[in-house]
Amino acid sequence: MSKGLPKRSENYPEWYNELVKRADLAENSAVRGCMVIKPYGFSIWEKMQATLDQMFKDTGHVNAYFPLFIPKSYLSREASHVEGFAKECAVVTHYRLKNAPDGSGVIVDPEAKLEEELIVRPTSETVIWSTYKNWIQSYRDLPLLINQWANVVRWEMRTRLFLRTTEFLWQEGHTAHANAAEAIAETEQMLEVYATFAEQFMALPVIRGRKTANERFAGAVDTYCIEALMQDGKALQAGTSHFLGQNFAKAFDVRFASQDQKLDYVWGTSWGVSTRLVGALIMAHSDDEGLVLPPKLAPIQVVIVPIFRSNEELTRISETAQAIRKNLLAKGISVKYDDRDTYKPGWKFTEYEMKGVPVRLAIGPKDMDNGTVEVARRDTREKMTMSREGIEPKIAQLLTDIQENIYQRAWAFRQENTVRVDSYGEFKELLDRKGGFLLAHWDGTSETEEKIKEETKATIRCIPLDAEEEPGACVYTGKPSAQRVVFARNY
Amino acid sequence: MSKGLPKRSENYPEWYNELVKRADLAENSAVRGCMVIKPYGFSIWEKMQATLDQMFKDTGHVNAYFPLFIPKSYLSREASHVEGFAKECAVVTHYRLKNAPDGSGVIVDPEAKLEEELIVRPTSETVIWSTYKNWIQSYRDLPLLINQWANVVRWEMRTRLFLRTTEFLWQEGHTAHANAAEAIAETEQMLEVYATFAEQFMALPVIRGRKTANERFAGAVDTYCIEALMQDGKALQAGTSHFLGQNFAKAFDVRFASQDQKLDYVWGTSWGVSTRLVGALIMAHSDDEGLVLPPKLAPIQVVIVPIFRSNEELTRISETAQAIRKNLLAKGISVKYDDRDTYKPGWKFTEYEMKGVPVRLAIGPKDMDNGTVEVARRDTREKMTMSREGIEPKIAQLLTDIQENIYQRAWAFRQENTVRVDSYGEFKELLDRKGGFLLAHWDGTSETEEKIKEETKATIRCIPLDAEEEPGACVYTGKPSAQRVVFARNY
Repeated sequence: MSKGLPKRSENYPEWYNELVKRADLAENSAVRGCMVIKPYGFSIWEKMQATLDQMFKDTGHVNAYFPLFIPKSYLSREASHVEGFAKECAVVTHYRLKNAPDGSGVIVDPEAKLEEELIVRPTSETVIWSTYKNWIQSYRDLPLLINQWANVVRWEMRTRLFLRTTEFLWQEGHTAHANAAEAIAETEQMLEVYATFAEQFMALPVIRGRKTANERFAGAVDTYCIEALMQDGKALQAGTSHFLGQNFAKAFDVRFASQDQKLDYVWGTSWGVSTRLVGALIMAHSDDEGLVLPPKLAPIQVVIVPIFRSNEELTRISETAQAIRKNLLAKGISVKYDDRDTYKPGWKFTEYEMKGVPVRLAIGPKDMDNGTVEVARRDTREKMTMSREGIEPKIAQLLTDIQENIYQRAWAFRQENTVRVDSYGEFKELLDRKGGFLLAHWDGTSETEEKIKEETKATIRCIPLDAEEEPGACVYTGKPSAQRVVFARNY
Repeated sequence: MSKGLPKRSENYPEWYNELVKRADLAENSAVRGCMVIKPYGFSIWEKMQATLDQMFKDTGHVNAYFPLFIPKSYLSREASHVEGFAKECAVVTHYRLKNAPDGSGVIVDPEAKLEEELIVRPTSETVIWSTYKNWIQSYRDLPLLINQWANVVRWEMRTRLFLRTTEFLWQEGHTAHANAAEAIAETEQMLEVYATFAEQFMALPVIRGRKTANERFAGAVDTYCIEALMQDGKALQAGTSHFLGQNFAKAFDVRFASQDQKLDYVWGTSWGVSTRLVGALIMAHSDDEGLVLPPKLAPIQVVIVPIFRSNEELTRISETAQAIRKNLLAKGISVKYDDRDTYKPGWKFTEYEMKGVPVRLAIGPKDMDNGTVEVARRDTREKMTMSREGIEPKIAQLLTDIQENIYQRAWAFRQENTVRVDSYGEFKELLDRKGGFLLAHWDGTSETEEKIKEETKATIRCIPLDAEEEPGACVYTGKPSAQRVVFARNY
């Protein structure tokens, strides 16, 4: 099964594509740029969703649902928003089909043309703020803390499964506040929720930072982000949280009466993560044998494979396997017992390695005689023999260890590949040789940022929140700079 | 707050509209026919989703995600499917906007016309079966048991919040099987899942039946449904489950090698319920004071309202209230403690009645002195005084009683309004006077069915699965009939 999975060191993009396919995660659909998320891939997204949804609720948010379609004119209401989004939209112009006169199928009915075209939402700020206008009159209506799980469409020219697709699934939070400080606190809180999720569940260390003006969300005053490093040395933006100021409130005339009866525009935030996180998860941890999943997001945490030649052997092994399964389930661990006789154990081993199941237990006749179980962990591919007696707490501990080990490995990789760079020659050389996060001084101008991007394809991923003040000289112009920023090539 | 909610007896449609609005469930959006589902309304849908999703998983199904867009030509592949769905679709014709030359906003870029138009899915059989073709080769790949939670769009001329909207949320199951018997068993199983959900969670008795040919899903061999009766005597179809035969397999050339190496077309089913169920829930149980929610689907099951004049009183009451809240939460009961001082208790009482919270506890200074709590149940609007000591198991029991009572009340209402009718005069008179389910003989022809519909607006809701064989004469033509069917006017 794993035969022919390209090696990461030889062809990383092809390794990724093949892995997504072989691990049954997703595939391209007949519709250009749209993917089909297959059951196994979707079950990873479901685990992410469930975890994030609880984190949003724990921070006081509620879910709602807003329309898929946005009237075309809404997009123009916020000047910079339209520049960022209007260019890549799916446009609905008609609402009916009819039979072709020649009987060849159906055609668009020219009589059924919409007066105003509808845009399939690329993001929902406009439709949501047009609604908030009716929901917010007074300070009593604030804060409004709403999240939506939805599909969005951005017409992309080059797509890649999970990482960049025309349609994708995401959540978008849209909150409204009585003052700037509260809105900024919300923006920062949600960035921290994303960072916590990435680190504690995805086992993915991230840099928390702010975007430069060039990379800011269209319509935001400030964009915060978390940035992760993939195994090929490229950066991946894993989540963004935007302080919108009063931009959308002004565009849609959303005002509130304050406690002292003054009328003011409402302050807003928005924040989102998407199915792109599944791509990040795959690329951050997996190896040449297949997926490596952190236990907290693995749809199957433990698989049990019986090794048997006769039905009698299977019956005997199954009794033990089912008892272990039951005890692990009672500990909240998801377990699959794969006793199919249509596939050989070796085939199953390869299959579950490809699918990234963190722990595999194998039980054969000898194990039965010896009271043992063979335990294999996916992250290090180590095998060990454990006593069957009291194995359950050891497996629970092993899952915790694997979660931690995957994080530590990703952290060590990022450490190795985060380099302070002070000359432009070294900057370019490093980017070409191994990529990574380059910590360099920058003079703060969009012009320099764009020139570096043109010449090296590296962008400023973020201005880190925790950076020390450190006076220096811009790596490109030599002009003064107050702190280092993070450069990288990116997805 | 409830002042001015129209009475059901005077204007049922207006009562429904106002209730949806006042209970903060949903509202119309700026986009024709599309609704905004507000947080409180969405939290009811979330409870429905969570319950159904578990029921689907318990019956062996997994979730996946298929594209929003369907190539226009796909719709024509299954002959009757296109007749049913192509006429009412949102059509995407372009993929880009550009700035208007006169600076007035954005216009559709005529250069960005799609070669083949895309349809926003009205249902996903076509896109899913075109995918299944690649997933199914052998009997080993079957059965394929997949569900999708998604938004769909059907261009409706007349819309009503939850009941009929242009965009709505739903789940659609799409399964593939090696033989007809297995596919029919699946169709029947999922109908039973829906019926169980309706009866045990929504507290809504339903009739399980089959649709006539006229009312069948476009592309199905057989459509099963559950039908519920609303308080105005109209029927509401609450879920459908379709046996597709080999229709879609043939349309998309999905064949499999059987165990004895013969090639045959795959057998299919599809089944779905939607946000329409929220409408059904509202209409089935609510009264002139507002929503009545069955406890199993109520986002807030118990609300505690303190009655206080001073901060000292509030502090004292809060201690008791929080203790009760904690104990109820530990029993898995959702509780809200509303200690806001910006609203009076009376206002809160009315508000939570409007929102259908099943149990309200009120605690005032006298209760504190007496060791009591005032308990009000929403379904009967009865009030009682309970001892604070040991109140928690009594509240848990009360919730169970309310769930059962709401079901019994709906069941009694349906009994009263289900009438055996043997003359066409009585048939018409009953429909006009009080509606309800009319059990009448029918000669089995589409012609008669259509004539009755034209003359009375009543349709055959279903041929009940549990109907006894009972020879009789068609209520319209007098021709022979083998069993009664269910007629009603419907939503």
